[in-house]
Amino acid sequence: MTKITPKTLKGFRDFLPLEARKRQYVINTLKEVFERYGFEPLETPVLEYEEILAGKYGDEGDQLMYRFEDNGKRRVAMRYDQTVPTARVVAQYGSASSPQGAPLLPIPFKRYQIQPVWRAENTQKGRYREFVQCDIDTIGIDSALSDAEIIATAVEFCKKLGFKNFKVLINDRKVFEKLSTQAIITIDKLKKIGEDGVCEELVKKQIVGSTAEAKITLQELLDREPTERLIEIFKALEQLGVDQDVVEFSPTLARGLNYYTGMIFEIEVADYPVGSICGGGRYDELIGMFADRQIPAVGLALGFDRTIEAMEALGLFPTDVEKSSTQVLVTIFSEDLKQKSLEIASKLRNENINAEIYLGEIKEKNALEKQLKYADAKAIPYVIILGQKEIEKNSLTLRNMQTREQEEGSLDEILQKLA
Amino acid sequence: MTKITPKTLKGFRDFLPLEARKRQYVINTLKEVFERYGFEPLETPVLEYEEILAGKYGDEGDQLMYRFEDNGKRRVAMRYDQTVPTARVVAQYGSASSPQGAPLLPIPFKRYQIQPVWRAENTQKGRYREFVQCDIDTIGIDSALSDAEIIATAVEFCKKLGFKNFKVLINDRKVFEKLSTQAIITIDKLKKIGEDGVCEELVKKQIVGSTAEAKITLQELLDREPTERLIEIFKALEQLGVDQDVVEFSPTLARGLNYYTGMIFEIEVADYPVGSICGGGRYDELIGMFADRQIPAVGLALGFDRTIEAMEALGLFPTDVEKSSTQVLVTIFSEDLKQKSLEIASKLRNENINAEIYLGEIKEKNALEKQLKYADAKAIPYVIILGQKEIEKNSLTLRNMQTREQEEGSLDEILQKLA
Repeated sequence: MTKITPKTLKGFRDFLPLEARKRQYVINTLKEVFERYGFEPLETPVLEYEEILAGKYGDEGDQLMYRFEDNGKRRVAMRYDQTVPTARVVAQYGSASSPQGAPLLPIPFKRYQIQPVWRAENTQKGRYREFVQCDIDTIGIDSALSDAEIIATAVEFCKKLGFKNFKVLINDRKVFEKLSTQAIITIDKLKKIGEDGVCEELVKKQIVGSTAEAKITLQELLDREPTERLIEIFKALEQLGVDQDVVEFSPTLARGLNYYTGMIFEIEVADYPVGSICGGGRYDELIGMFADRQIPAVGLALGFDRTIEAMEALGLFPTDVEKSSTQVLVTIFSEDLKQKSLEIASKLRNENINAEIYLGEIKEKNALEKQLKYADAKAIPYVIILGQKEIEKNSLTLRNMQTREQEEGSLDEILQKLA
Repeated sequence: MTKITPKTLKGFRDFLPLEARKRQYVINTLKEVFERYGFEPLETPVLEYEEILAGKYGDEGDQLMYRFEDNGKRRVAMRYDQTVPTARVVAQYGSASSPQGAPLLPIPFKRYQIQPVWRAENTQKGRYREFVQCDIDTIGIDSALSDAEIIATAVEFCKKLGFKNFKVLINDRKVFEKLSTQAIITIDKLKKIGEDGVCEELVKKQIVGSTAEAKITLQELLDREPTERLIEIFKALEQLGVDQDVVEFSPTLARGLNYYTGMIFEIEVADYPVGSICGGGRYDELIGMFADRQIPAVGLALGFDRTIEAMEALGLFPTDVEKSSTQVLVTIFSEDLKQKSLEIASKLRNENINAEIYLGEIKEKNALEKQLKYADAKAIPYVIILGQKEIEKNSLTLRNMQTREQEEGSLDEILQKLA
């Protein structure tokens, strides 16, 4: 057999324990908040019939989608986003009932979905080909309250993740009703290229005849008052206890995607100006695609990788998440002392403390050093040392791996310390 | 556009909220136990270079594997199990260090992995083509203690999941060293076809010359004492606090897979006799496949779908897992009363109670009935009723959806009730 080089595909990633733990922490925090607001989990398969996904994401989507013929000669495609599979689920089970006669998907259907998607992106742009999407959506209802609830949930998870200096920019896509898609795409660049840049592009694209005209168009947009729906949304946000300093009417916010039909929003983190970490809005013409009728919907998507990057840059991960999930390593020094070490580990576990026993080979020489090195490499915060000395005194030594401080005590004392 | 029928591929499943929650519960319980014993999460990509996976699972594996050419003309394959990707990870990062100079994968590498895999199985046999695998493995160490720790972890998660009447059957693959693979496969059927059946098959396959000879061979096996390694493992299990009634030496346990090289085990649930829910053992010749050297390893795999089936059959899911993650639905009766309802929901959420506000359209007629129906359909256990009567009395009505009992009280009283 020729030698196979162990490597991952370009744009795909392995997550070793410390990295995987950070991701788990973010996902668990999100789930907690999603469920706090009444959103429930949905899981759909990685593979779908190609016809379910094809043509749903424009030309780019069709190009970047992973699709192939399976062993049974079916054309299949890998999940490209979570909205189209959800639309399928709504059409497929929307009118079905449980054996007890209750609807399988009561309306509103409030679901969250946190699963990877696959896109054959250009990796030179720093993009991944496999990445996690986090979405929540309220399906089947068109109301200001359901719009506001999505934003309130977003504000809550930003706070729970530790973001302090963030803003929710809110607008109503209806503001742009009379403008062309090209004009919207240009105005969307306001933050990037400034007012003059936008005006220039509006002229260049022949959307308006002159720079003066462009300035008037843009100024009109900037002077616009919030729509009635937006006023209702802001009122509901207040009633839901959302801090009024966090939300802001942004008359030029456009969001690129042209499937939005009402409220749109984006969250910007002031200390981390690499674009928005979360955005969403109302899109009433998408979820009904397989059901042959219009089904209103409002939702958001969190940029998972970007959120993790921002949290790392801002130091928002709690210390224990950046360490091992093992809280204590229990040392073993010899076959004779092993029994006691195993008993201690077992007692720690019974007290809900994550405890690891050193499993490596133990030679008399450097036995402690080797075990401490292992704890360090794994970022295990504490080591319980149980040598001949400790056995004789019927005590344990607890070593804090960060401060290198050691203290002796009984198991009970050490349990209290660790709890 | 022609109408597209919304459907899932054969062998693939959607998990609607109640089902998804049960799966999450099992996964969270497993993770908790895995981390309790010092195993840490690993995640690998769904797609691998085909050459990494091809030829690793025998002819059947090559046949059932999902593989295709990607947009960049690379041959790729979808994850088929979690052991081969782990072997790749060990070879790829095994000698790499962090910027701080610590090894990326300290030995022993104790990892858990809970991810879906894909196999184009025959669905008529009730098999799925996408299913979750749950594995733990201790890599880089060959010792009785590391063997015992895997079994101790398994016993712990069986208990945590609620299984009461289960047995861990343990054997040493070395017992079979002198027997052919064919003989092992036959003996593995002892439970299914009985002693006579095994003897008959041994003769039929010409492994032995006569039924008498077969009986002697089988009896020799049955009479065999545990190997020295097994004695050590049983001793370590005792020291780790594992109940001795739960573990049992089983001299004829063979386990079909022929990559095992030492201790093997299986867990059987007495009240649910549809085969084993979990099994594993030592396999010292697999993990080194990409590293050009032997790397010892011991681990287990839990049958995720089978475990959920068994838990359902035995009623092991806690009541709240079988209900909505929403604990309370807060009613809304009119635009006027909305403000108060939103405030109550917000206060409940601040007290870490999962609260949902009714978002559906409210008409005077049947307003309460409609909201109770929604709570019932979603299996939300409590409803807070906040109508004109309650507002006037400055109180709330709490309805238990299961008993249909209602009681009035202040928000504080109701919070206490729900906590």
